[in-house]
Amino acid sequence: MPGRHHLFVPGPSNVPDRVLRAMHRAQEDHRSSAFPELTHGLLRDIKPVFGTQEGRPFLFAATGTGMWEAAIVNTLSPGDRVLAVRLGQFSHLFIDTAEKLGLKVEVIDLEWGDALDPAVIGERLAADANHALKAVLVVHNETATGVTNDIEGLREAMDAARHPALLLVDGVSSIGSLAFRQDAWKVDVAITGSQKGFMMPAGLGMVSLSPRALERIETAGFARHYFDLRPQVLHNDQGYFPYTPALAHLFGLREALDMMAEEGLDNVHARHARLGEGVRRAVAAWELRLCARDPESRSNTVTAIVVPDGKDARQVIDHAFRRWDMALGSGLGRLNGKVFRIGHLGDCNAGMLLAAIGLAEVAMHDAGIPVPLGSGVAAAQRWYRESA
Amino acid sequence: MPGRHHLFVPGPSNVPDRVLRAMHRAQEDHRSSAFPELTHGLLRDIKPVFGTQEGRPFLFAATGTGMWEAAIVNTLSPGDRVLAVRLGQFSHLFIDTAEKLGLKVEVIDLEWGDALDPAVIGERLAADANHALKAVLVVHNETATGVTNDIEGLREAMDAARHPALLLVDGVSSIGSLAFRQDAWKVDVAITGSQKGFMMPAGLGMVSLSPRALERIETAGFARHYFDLRPQVLHNDQGYFPYTPALAHLFGLREALDMMAEEGLDNVHARHARLGEGVRRAVAAWELRLCARDPESRSNTVTAIVVPDGKDARQVIDHAFRRWDMALGSGLGRLNGKVFRIGHLGDCNAGMLLAAIGLAEVAMHDAGIPVPLGSGVAAAQRWYRESA
Amino acid sequence: MPGRHHLFVPGPSNVPDRVLRAMHRAQEDHRSSAFPELTHGLLRDIKPVFGTQEGRPFLFAATGTGMWEAAIVNTLSPGDRVLAVRLGQFSHLFIDTAEKLGLKVEVIDLEWGDALDPAVIGERLAADANHALKAVLVVHNETATGVTNDIEGLREAMDAARHPALLLVDGVSSIGSLAFRQDAWKVDVAITGSQKGFMMPAGLGMVSLSPRALERIETAGFARHYFDLRPQVLHNDQGYFPYTPALAHLFGLREALDMMAEEGLDNVHARHARLGEGVRRAVAAWELRLCARDPESRSNTVTAIVVPDGKDARQVIDHAFRRWDMALGSGLGRLNGKVFRIGHLGDCNAGMLLAAIGLAEVAMHDAGIPVPLGSGVAAAQRWYRESA
Amino acid sequence: MPGRHHLFVPGPSNVPDRVLRAMHRAQEDHRSSAFPELTHGLLRDIKPVFGTQEGRPFLFAATGTGMWEAAIVNTLSPGDRVLAVRLGQFSHLFIDTAEKLGLKVEVIDLEWGDALDPAVIGERLAADANHALKAVLVVHNETATGVTNDIEGLREAMDAARHPALLLVDGVSSIGSLAFRQDAWKVDVAITGSQKGFMMPAGLGMVSLSPRALERIETAGFARHYFDLRPQVLHNDQGYFPYTPALAHLFGLREALDMMAEEGLDNVHARHARLGEGVRRAVAAWELRLCARDPESRSNTVTAIVVPDGKDARQVIDHAFRRWDMALGSGLGRLNGKVFRIGHLGDCNAGMLLAAIGLAEVAMHDAGIPVPLGSGVAAAQRWYRESA
Repeated sequence: MPGRHHLFVPGPSNVPDRVLRAMHRAQEDHRSSAFPELTHGLLRDIKPVFGTQEGRPFLFAATGTGMWEAAIVNTLSPGDRVLAVRLGQFSHLFIDTAEKLGLKVEVIDLEWGDALDPAVIGERLAADANHALKAVLVVHNETATGVTNDIEGLREAMDAARHPALLLVDGVSSIGSLAFRQDAWKVDVAITGSQKGFMMPAGLGMVSLSPRALERIETAGFARHYFDLRPQVLHNDQGYFPYTPALAHLFGLREALDMMAEEGLDNVHARHARLGEGVRRAVAAWELRLCARDPESRSNTVTAIVVPDGKDARQVIDHAFRRWDMALGSGLGRLNGKVFRIGHLGDCNAGMLLAAIGLAEVAMHDAGIPVPLGSGVAAAQRWYRESA
Repeated sequence: MPGRHHLFVPGPSNVPDRVLRAMHRAQEDHRSSAFPELTHGLLRDIKPVFGTQEGRPFLFAATGTGMWEAAIVNTLSPGDRVLAVRLGQFSHLFIDTAEKLGLKVEVIDLEWGDALDPAVIGERLAADANHALKAVLVVHNETATGVTNDIEGLREAMDAARHPALLLVDGVSSIGSLAFRQDAWKVDVAITGSQKGFMMPAGLGMVSLSPRALERIETAGFARHYFDLRPQVLHNDQGYFPYTPALAHLFGLREALDMMAEEGLDNVHARHARLGEGVRRAVAAWELRLCARDPESRSNTVTAIVVPDGKDARQVIDHAFRRWDMALGSGLGRLNGKVFRIGHLGDCNAGMLLAAIGLAEVAMHDAGIPVPLGSGVAAAQRWYRESA
Repeated sequence: MPGRHHLFVPGPSNVPDRVLRAMHRAQEDHRSSAFPELTHGLLRDIKPVFGTQEGRPFLFAATGTGMWEAAIVNTLSPGDRVLAVRLGQFSHLFIDTAEKLGLKVEVIDLEWGDALDPAVIGERLAADANHALKAVLVVHNETATGVTNDIEGLREAMDAARHPALLLVDGVSSIGSLAFRQDAWKVDVAITGSQKGFMMPAGLGMVSLSPRALERIETAGFARHYFDLRPQVLHNDQGYFPYTPALAHLFGLREALDMMAEEGLDNVHARHARLGEGVRRAVAAWELRLCARDPESRSNTVTAIVVPDGKDARQVIDHAFRRWDMALGSGLGRLNGKVFRIGHLGDCNAGMLLAAIGLAEVAMHDAGIPVPLGSGVAAAQRWYRESA
Repeated sequence: MPGRHHLFVPGPSNVPDRVLRAMHRAQEDHRSSAFPELTHGLLRDIKPVFGTQEGRPFLFAATGTGMWEAAIVNTLSPGDRVLAVRLGQFSHLFIDTAEKLGLKVEVIDLEWGDALDPAVIGERLAADANHALKAVLVVHNETATGVTNDIEGLREAMDAARHPALLLVDGVSSIGSLAFRQDAWKVDVAITGSQKGFMMPAGLGMVSLSPRALERIETAGFARHYFDLRPQVLHNDQGYFPYTPALAHLFGLREALDMMAEEGLDNVHARHARLGEGVRRAVAAWELRLCARDPESRSNTVTAIVVPDGKDARQVIDHAFRRWDMALGSGLGRLNGKVFRIGHLGDCNAGMLLAAIGLAEVAMHDAGIPVPLGSGVAAAQRWYRESA
């Protein structure tokens, strides 16, 4: 189709031209004496994005799914009991990963659309007097429902319960877009991937381990190889990787980190907050319901919109794609057909979202959901002007 | 600024990624035995875009401005008297070029916003019994006012006047976007550049000569070198150029022609008509005036919008650029401050124009022109749905 | 440094501009209704490169190291006894992977520089009357020594021993460059990565399973998640992936497969044979020794050259890099300092290797190994002319 | 053909990836308030490359051929008498341009392969007591013969003759590669293009005018438009161009200037000298003759090699192209079939030239010119080691 494709899934996000250019580059010898400069620079400059000075980041040729595995196999042991919260498809898959790998997962199931309640987790941990629970597994931002969990509050609850469980946090759709404070929140393993806030194609996985988590890699009981952090530590210290790294992605990461630093991380976060609010105001103007129930937990990277009873969100998505050259996120798992999602993360601005909102309106019309045309756009315009 | 820049000047237009990729290529020897395949293919496949089978196209490392010169110096002689119509900044500059080069230009001056009247030209030619006028110089689409002239009607008027003047037509902002029929309209020299309907960066000029015009290159009285078509004919016949061609642009043109052929030229034209109508409906919803007065002459590649009395269009443009990362076309020459322009040509689609219209609305607000937010977007949405 | 960097490590290989261009592309929704066309096309067209019709290929965001893991965890079970041959650093690491994951590896250790002897493996298998050995793990092409093993002969020996062990073959530096016949050789799992014969940046891992191996994925005893093939089967059947794929690499693979098909796979293999022979003739002219002892086993993708006693290959590599902007492969593991390696795989031609050989000559001089300047180049020139 | 194409024509030179990446960029509004930063930066940073502080550079969407025209039409008048030296195809074409445009050119014809003799020009000027000669037109580096003229000496001779003729110098294949001192040599118009030392695709022409030449643009008698410098002065002063500039090339120029500054212009010139000497030593080893007779005048950007009597250089070129994927420069004009040329300018290094020399050797063999294989390579290797 002529013209630019309108990509508004919540990942992969739109890759800025600067990053694509940076990746369009001849390969190099990853064992050369010049290579450590790249490695060390990346591992240094990625730390602020995770909100850490004490933590240690690692890079893998893998996607976020692989990073779930890396987090688990390097800090836990088969048969370990862990506590997890399921509140959408990605927290579900995180749990699924843990179970597939042999953890015993105690699941707190929430309505999809709700945020976790730190108090509930705190109570459960307080009740675990023997510290049978070895870790807490949560998502920071549930991409499927557009809900952002309160990790700071969770940490307070864990501390109040004086429970030593590790805190493993999926930040795939938050880190790089939303404020993430690994040190302040004492997140033991923070997990993310390249194709969202980092504005790159998928294919680079990133984890950052707290000092406490890093100690566990020597004692973790999982047989493992690809995601084993022990050789990574040794090689990274020298500026290398234990096996061939995904070099094009490293070049891309270099550029993405430079872009984030140029904008300023606080500005990046504020921009996402501003952009997300515009989308939410559009949804309010449409008189549609957000999947995320609690206003405090509404995500600044993705908005899941509930279609009216009797309507099929898949039709919105399908018309958007076929008629309007726009990709919307679908309802995942039990939300299939009930929601469509607009991603507003990474390399995004107000004008792009006016297009997204405007196209969502026409696609909804096509699907028999006649929100007043222009109503969401107008609401977003007002907000973007106010907040400019 | 983060996110994609919103480029809506009427040239350079947005270069599609395919074309940028095609231009991102190692150089080659333009004298190699393999080179003619590229040359011949381009010169063959560009013909349909000019609407010609009989005509002969030429390619130059130059912009459209250079093609005005190429058209004149290859078909006319210093001191020749020509007839031209001034109805905006670009027809003005075409005339200026002719005068600078030494032609005697008889100018029909119109209000900027009006289209040429074929009857007036026909009458003037009919009155020129001695055929003192050697050529008629007009723009097909006046980029400064958003007015498309009726070249078919002009040809009929010229034929009715039985006048042998050459017809030189600037199609810089029309060819490749609007239907152009060099053969049917008996256009002697059709002129264009790469950065509009051809969806490329500026830097490649193109002219196509009718057989009658082509004969003139031997007798044209201008001393000339760079734009001389005589060596071009000789070298092009062999698949080469008389001097180093702008190779990256030739690679880009190859891709652009392939894209046009894939979409189908009729579909390209229909798409521009549909997209342009959406912008016009937005302007109507804003209750603003188009610079182009006659509804029949409103351009499908660019719309010039008149701001209310007492308002300054430059402020709209400046706010759009600085606050909203959007480039709008300015009012040129005597229209400075009075109009802003939205380009909707080349690689463009409905979603892009919803962004353009939505951003224009907020920029107008910033400039003290409080059109109802979302009103233009809604009008465009309705039309794009109707016409989908 | 000005001018093009001379990259002659045996991976990453030189990525052709066409592939880089293909990867320089806006992202897309990997869950769209248009996506299966890409997936199905890749999984279909990669089969001939593996030499398989019956096999089933899979694609991962990972490097070749991850594919070792994928091969093992999907077809074997913890504690399984396997037979492996160690004849260089990469076969060593393959064994290391297997041990880390919990296999009991019976290792046949060879001199580094020797090829495996199918008869020895056949004898060992014949002696394994109870079929305690569940798999044979070998490398097709040992990248560290420049030795190509005879997989066809190995298969014959295994068949003669009537042993049901699975045959797992690392083809990282062979598949895409050397003839590989998964079906004919009854290779149960063929393993490769993107950054060698496939001419791409690292980051895409590929395995192909025989029907027999594919059955094992249901019974394999490893807890696993990221590299689990079961969800891949389900999603790939529909044209999707169970989690976000490395999209840029998929675009690159599409182009690489097209390029291979255009050249013709037999031609690709013949080209590598011709190019490799030129390098070997250069080494002979230098009167230096190849690491690969048996002439029959000398690799057509990489040549490891033994420096004279008392010389340090690291100096050759270091001078090549710092003075001549050339990357040579180093001696890995126990070969460190003893060999340097020239990669001649992927997007390579005679002229590139004349540069490689010529630069290796000057770098050797710099390192105190005064081979006659031009001697290796001349030998290669003669061969390339003869074989042109 | 697989592998990298070996481009060794003396223009277009190899465009470094950095420049290609810089050109691969979305277009922008060339009338925006941010645009002058680009314009002013380019016009400032290009000055050192011309060796000027006093001069004023201009940029055109055109090739070097257009810059001949720009130089002439802005500083001279039709019918003006000028003195020129013809010593190869490009000086011939410069003369041809002048004649086509209506100058009366007094030509000093040299053997092709000879350099101009400043004394001869000095004498001719001294004899021109009435100053009938308005300008001297010479090439700095004759690309067709590989001869570099002594512009410094020419200036001395002109000064000694106390003749006010303007000095117009074609530096197309020198500026950016060889030391060029516009101010010191009092060059009135220095002419160049983008596709040689500037390491870009063709399509951007550059001229720099001395203050004295700049005054002439007001009085020059040529009717002109596209190449008229008067509007350029006015618009450039504001940071703009009088018509749409070749934006992709401006982006490329920005990067090329940055690369030159990073390397250091003196280092750029020294590198060209070193690289050129290596090629000449190869030719000496081949016992072939250089087209450039005087050792002092041999060009560091291009070497023209005379094939033995009875041999046809076109066959060398043709075999190089078809069998070895290498582009060599052909013999132009009267040198057709007698010489082939190797370009060693722009983004070039020793390893690239070892490939060029090695491939030229095999192509000569193919064409029946059996120079000892490897002999030229060895001579170049020795020199590059010595001079490293």
